[in-house]
Amino acid sequence: MTTTVQTAIVGVTGYAGGELARLLLAHPRLQGKPPVLAGRVDEKDLARGGVPLAEIHPHLAGGVANQLKDAASQLKMEPFSWELFAARKVDVLFLATPHAQSRAWAPEALKRGIRVIDLSGAWRLTEAAHRAVYAFEDEGSAQAAAIQAQAVYGMPELHRKEIAKAKLIANPGCYATSVILPLRPLVAAGLVDLDAGIVADAKSGVSGAGKAPTAKTHFMSAADNLSAYAVFTHRHTGELVEQIGVAGDQIVFTPHLLPIPRGILSTIYVRFKQAQTAGSVARVYREFFAASPMVRLYEKSLPQIQYSVRTNYADIGFEIDAGGKRAVIVSCLDNLLKGAAGQAVQNLNVLEGWPEAEGLA
Amino acid sequence: MTTTVQTAIVGVTGYAGGELARLLLAHPRLQGKPPVLAGRVDEKDLARGGVPLAEIHPHLAGGVANQLKDAASQLKMEPFSWELFAARKVDVLFLATPHAQSRAWAPEALKRGIRVIDLSGAWRLTEAAHRAVYAFEDEGSAQAAAIQAQAVYGMPELHRKEIAKAKLIANPGCYATSVILPLRPLVAAGLVDLDAGIVADAKSGVSGAGKAPTAKTHFMSAADNLSAYAVFTHRHTGELVEQIGVAGDQIVFTPHLLPIPRGILSTIYVRFKQAQTAGSVARVYREFFAASPMVRLYEKSLPQIQYSVRTNYADIGFEIDAGGKRAVIVSCLDNLLKGAAGQAVQNLNVLEGWPEAEGLA
Amino acid sequence: MTTTVQTAIVGVTGYAGGELARLLLAHPRLQGKPPVLAGRVDEKDLARGGVPLAEIHPHLAGGVANQLKDAASQLKMEPFSWELFAARKVDVLFLATPHAQSRAWAPEALKRGIRVIDLSGAWRLTEAAHRAVYAFEDEGSAQAAAIQAQAVYGMPELHRKEIAKAKLIANPGCYATSVILPLRPLVAAGLVDLDAGIVADAKSGVSGAGKAPTAKTHFMSAADNLSAYAVFTHRHTGELVEQIGVAGDQIVFTPHLLPIPRGILSTIYVRFKQAQTAGSVARVYREFFAASPMVRLYEKSLPQIQYSVRTNYADIGFEIDAGGKRAVIVSCLDNLLKGAAGQAVQNLNVLEGWPEAEGLA
Amino acid sequence: MTTTVQTAIVGVTGYAGGELARLLLAHPRLQGKPPVLAGRVDEKDLARGGVPLAEIHPHLAGGVANQLKDAASQLKMEPFSWELFAARKVDVLFLATPHAQSRAWAPEALKRGIRVIDLSGAWRLTEAAHRAVYAFEDEGSAQAAAIQAQAVYGMPELHRKEIAKAKLIANPGCYATSVILPLRPLVAAGLVDLDAGIVADAKSGVSGAGKAPTAKTHFMSAADNLSAYAVFTHRHTGELVEQIGVAGDQIVFTPHLLPIPRGILSTIYVRFKQAQTAGSVARVYREFFAASPMVRLYEKSLPQIQYSVRTNYADIGFEIDAGGKRAVIVSCLDNLLKGAAGQAVQNLNVLEGWPEAEGLA
Repeated sequence: MTTTVQTAIVGVTGYAGGELARLLLAHPRLQGKPPVLAGRVDEKDLARGGVPLAEIHPHLAGGVANQLKDAASQLKMEPFSWELFAARKVDVLFLATPHAQSRAWAPEALKRGIRVIDLSGAWRLTEAAHRAVYAFEDEGSAQAAAIQAQAVYGMPELHRKEIAKAKLIANPGCYATSVILPLRPLVAAGLVDLDAGIVADAKSGVSGAGKAPTAKTHFMSAADNLSAYAVFTHRHTGELVEQIGVAGDQIVFTPHLLPIPRGILSTIYVRFKQAQTAGSVARVYREFFAASPMVRLYEKSLPQIQYSVRTNYADIGFEIDAGGKRAVIVSCLDNLLKGAAGQAVQNLNVLEGWPEAEGLA
Repeated sequence: MTTTVQTAIVGVTGYAGGELARLLLAHPRLQGKPPVLAGRVDEKDLARGGVPLAEIHPHLAGGVANQLKDAASQLKMEPFSWELFAARKVDVLFLATPHAQSRAWAPEALKRGIRVIDLSGAWRLTEAAHRAVYAFEDEGSAQAAAIQAQAVYGMPELHRKEIAKAKLIANPGCYATSVILPLRPLVAAGLVDLDAGIVADAKSGVSGAGKAPTAKTHFMSAADNLSAYAVFTHRHTGELVEQIGVAGDQIVFTPHLLPIPRGILSTIYVRFKQAQTAGSVARVYREFFAASPMVRLYEKSLPQIQYSVRTNYADIGFEIDAGGKRAVIVSCLDNLLKGAAGQAVQNLNVLEGWPEAEGLA
Repeated sequence: MTTTVQTAIVGVTGYAGGELARLLLAHPRLQGKPPVLAGRVDEKDLARGGVPLAEIHPHLAGGVANQLKDAASQLKMEPFSWELFAARKVDVLFLATPHAQSRAWAPEALKRGIRVIDLSGAWRLTEAAHRAVYAFEDEGSAQAAAIQAQAVYGMPELHRKEIAKAKLIANPGCYATSVILPLRPLVAAGLVDLDAGIVADAKSGVSGAGKAPTAKTHFMSAADNLSAYAVFTHRHTGELVEQIGVAGDQIVFTPHLLPIPRGILSTIYVRFKQAQTAGSVARVYREFFAASPMVRLYEKSLPQIQYSVRTNYADIGFEIDAGGKRAVIVSCLDNLLKGAAGQAVQNLNVLEGWPEAEGLA
Repeated sequence: MTTTVQTAIVGVTGYAGGELARLLLAHPRLQGKPPVLAGRVDEKDLARGGVPLAEIHPHLAGGVANQLKDAASQLKMEPFSWELFAARKVDVLFLATPHAQSRAWAPEALKRGIRVIDLSGAWRLTEAAHRAVYAFEDEGSAQAAAIQAQAVYGMPELHRKEIAKAKLIANPGCYATSVILPLRPLVAAGLVDLDAGIVADAKSGVSGAGKAPTAKTHFMSAADNLSAYAVFTHRHTGELVEQIGVAGDQIVFTPHLLPIPRGILSTIYVRFKQAQTAGSVARVYREFFAASPMVRLYEKSLPQIQYSVRTNYADIGFEIDAGGKRAVIVSCLDNLLKGAAGQAVQNLNVLEGWPEAEGLA
């Protein structure tokens, strides 16, 4: 059942990168083929061949009896270079890097025949949208446009076929995943009154704010608190607009910082063109996700963040008002898994033609 | 500065009741006049004259040196009876009791000439609305209707004058306070496009769910979690409709259970009839709350739950989109203070003609 | 690699039972052989053949595409009866039940030739110690004594050989595991000055207090708090005394309730008979645990609860003072895994002759 | 009842400084006399006369109706200079500054006739002890020795008389307060077998780690976690040794980082020379603290962190084993109040001859 695919990760020091390393190390198809880890390595660590993964993420190390033998304990983050990837014959490169770095490195990898699964926002939008939102230096350049044209939005539930053939997969944003998955089926089916406007009120755990210590991620600011931020201006809004298929003024998206480590819950408000029943809406979802093993539909209750955390599932539930014209949809997922590293591995599975949920269930 | 007003509390064992006792004990006008505490007292405690407040709420007790002298340490919850209140010449009775109990006891108190500040939902709605929502046994009765007609909705920012003369004050719901205060000024000013619908997405700490241990309030269910509940069916919706002045299908209200002890943040989505600016909206708020010491307007940032917790303030901030037609309003308050006990004391202040913020700042 | 061993769980509704179900369902040797789940099933659920596991523990259910096919979604908790176990040819029964229930049911299972792994405290101590601590009705009876004589304390790191041949395995207490593992090697090596006394100050997450909603497990009591309890009286003390090999007055054990869902950290204070170095102490640990894959020794830093949570590892680290005569040892583990369900599966592995860490790494 | 004492705070931006500002603003004796706030002010803020306190600590600001009038909203942190303090006739200066800064500034203040209450560790130990622990540049200098000789350890329960006459008060460490208060009475009474060794296992909320965002204070590191640190090396150990009156090898002190915002619980283990009863120990405490309004003795249960948080009380409770020879003592306090700002105000009260608990109860 194993394979000859060689993976690599840049950005393993972050939360998503760490989860990615964990998933790839445990993936049934990749046994004996641990990912190459590359990053910035200082002089002291160069001397010992890199930084042991077990020092970066202590929870990934093995026990006394196998302290020198298990893969995670032996694995080291080595100094980044394209020569390293060539020497190790890397086939698929995961970039868990800042937007600008992914923007610069993805083209380099493609040039060398390495397929890329990029977890940043560098390649998720059409060129025009990117310009407004990220302001990359190379935007509008012919090269950027050419590469963007190849990029596939890495949400298997929407673009499974394109992903299977992609060279560059733009792994979706965590918030975007939690809003697109519950909305796309209803909008695609023509149920939603777009002119009435959609509200997506999303709440995320602190790991979504990244590993850098800041005033915002300080325990004292985040604990016992809730705050809204980036109102009307969050970058994931572009993904919502393009992937759901709505105009910018037809949706409002507000993110909030929750006092929990991980997980996103999005509460979504829509009006229907015509009255619906719980059954008619469930039917739309069931059909849309019939081939999607990583979506769970809640028909008798609403999902809660706890149920999806540490899984790769996107959980969806909803309530319809007495008149059948308004719905409140609740979607939950783990921002580091279905919202990042898990979806990236799901994309790898699709790319390699493996069962989509392999190594993720 | 002190007074001769004698207060009493039924329901001091709960969270709101405990906060109420703390506030009344520290109130400058009530020094030397601690509240009479009444409730269910078992036989063992009867023998010692009741249950010491310091055993019910250990944080209210004093230190070694004054263990026998400070008011909180000496105060006891005595067995409930109308004779007790008569003997102590109770003027104002706070009911921090379940809805049905308040429904039964408020008339009894009024009959005896005791004014009532009721923290339950028993008297907040018009009779017709009550019937649909609470289904009290006595609903529709002549007595209930007569008493309901006397009841004043206890939100000083909206009904200051009526409260000053009231015999029965229906202290608002915690969620309701956090949604009505930011919406009423805009709706009253005619800014809001009601047909476009209002969304109020509210999140509350666990103290809002009460002191009874349940599966929902178990640490394992509440911590590291977020869940929506009572979608389209929460009882506070009636208060929103009546006090904001909208139709039931013009507003959707969704409560969520936050993994924090106290605090509510409501994120509210409105569309304006005509484009507004930050300045024009702020002006409406500033005028509406010009005489309201317990509302704080955030003009440069958004409020966060932390800022209002353990205060009696309602904090309001907002963002307007580029076109000026849509607004996201964020309101925060402490569900046990401005959302319950604090607002009750604010009502007492108004009732007695004392400065509205006295004992609350 | 699969097997014909049929497992069963009584008590799957609790936290440890849920973890046990999760581990057994994912265990490589038990694919296609899901555990039989048995418990109290009410009439309504009888009609549909039991309570679906996915309703008891929603996080164990699969997605839309496999909602009717995956093992966890299909599995049901059926009404408990010995006939059920006979019909399903159960080989190994896990009891995640209250002490008294395990005390009654283990003999019944043994009588029927079913081996038992009991997660309660019913069979962990010698009969004499049991009498003082648990006061079971049958204590002192010939039958109880006979069964107790067969019971093996299920800590593979100490009793691997006996477990392999056992009919009844008494799975250790969570606190006990976190204190015995770091202390037994040092005491066995004769390093510790027992007369000077050992202090074990242990802190546990709330799942250790069980799933029943109580005043203690209410979010408001547990969150933002820390409390000591059962000082000098906790039942796990008996396990410490017997398994470490000390007298009752040579060790003090104090448990505390931490405001986190899971994990135990024990801080242990010992004096050495003769001055030690970090190296000499590490050597003792390394030798003792040389064949123990589920213990991790920290030699450069101290373990933290986070590193061990959701793993089956027991993490051990220590500091020695300048004079070499005093040590502070820190041990961490997940109370539901190495402290309960994980250790139970580790015992199953030993019992069946499978690799000890299989299904647990 | 008001006074003419003018206070000032350096370091108001930190957690302890913020609490200090809050307490001084609300202190009955200081109405109309808000503290002078001084610190680093950048150019942009210089233009508006400093940084508004309400921007540094939003929870201290008033509401719409009094936004321009209440003291906290008007108060600004001005650029630090000795001229500022001279112009405002500052009598008492609170230094909530880093150790080295307090070491440099306290002498400057004393030279100018300003009394100092220093919340840092700069002046808490005898010169010899300081040298070993803090390694200040000026240690061993004649000036430092002279100033140290004037410094009084600011724990009113131990040094009330000396504090009343002091020019320089060294406010105790938070951990130190939580360990000294429960131990000093027993050691002073000669009850404790010091040769058997004392263990103090302390756990503190994250505010104790300061406001600077670090890997340690990141929500993801602190939440759902517990860790021990500075084992055998924490700086507060020097205070324990000197104030309790024990030798360095007679006490072990281990601090832990708790996943809560504030509060310390210390679990302390002692052996008695002769068997004691609960009554005999309680008597010692009651006598020792007879004149101490800020200590609460728990005689029927143990204190919990929640009871003391947001109060200035130090709570003490204990259990004695069956033989009467061993005790476990539990002490709780709020690290920002009794462990810092509250104790500083308590010291101010003693210094000025006001009731010791004024503005603190």
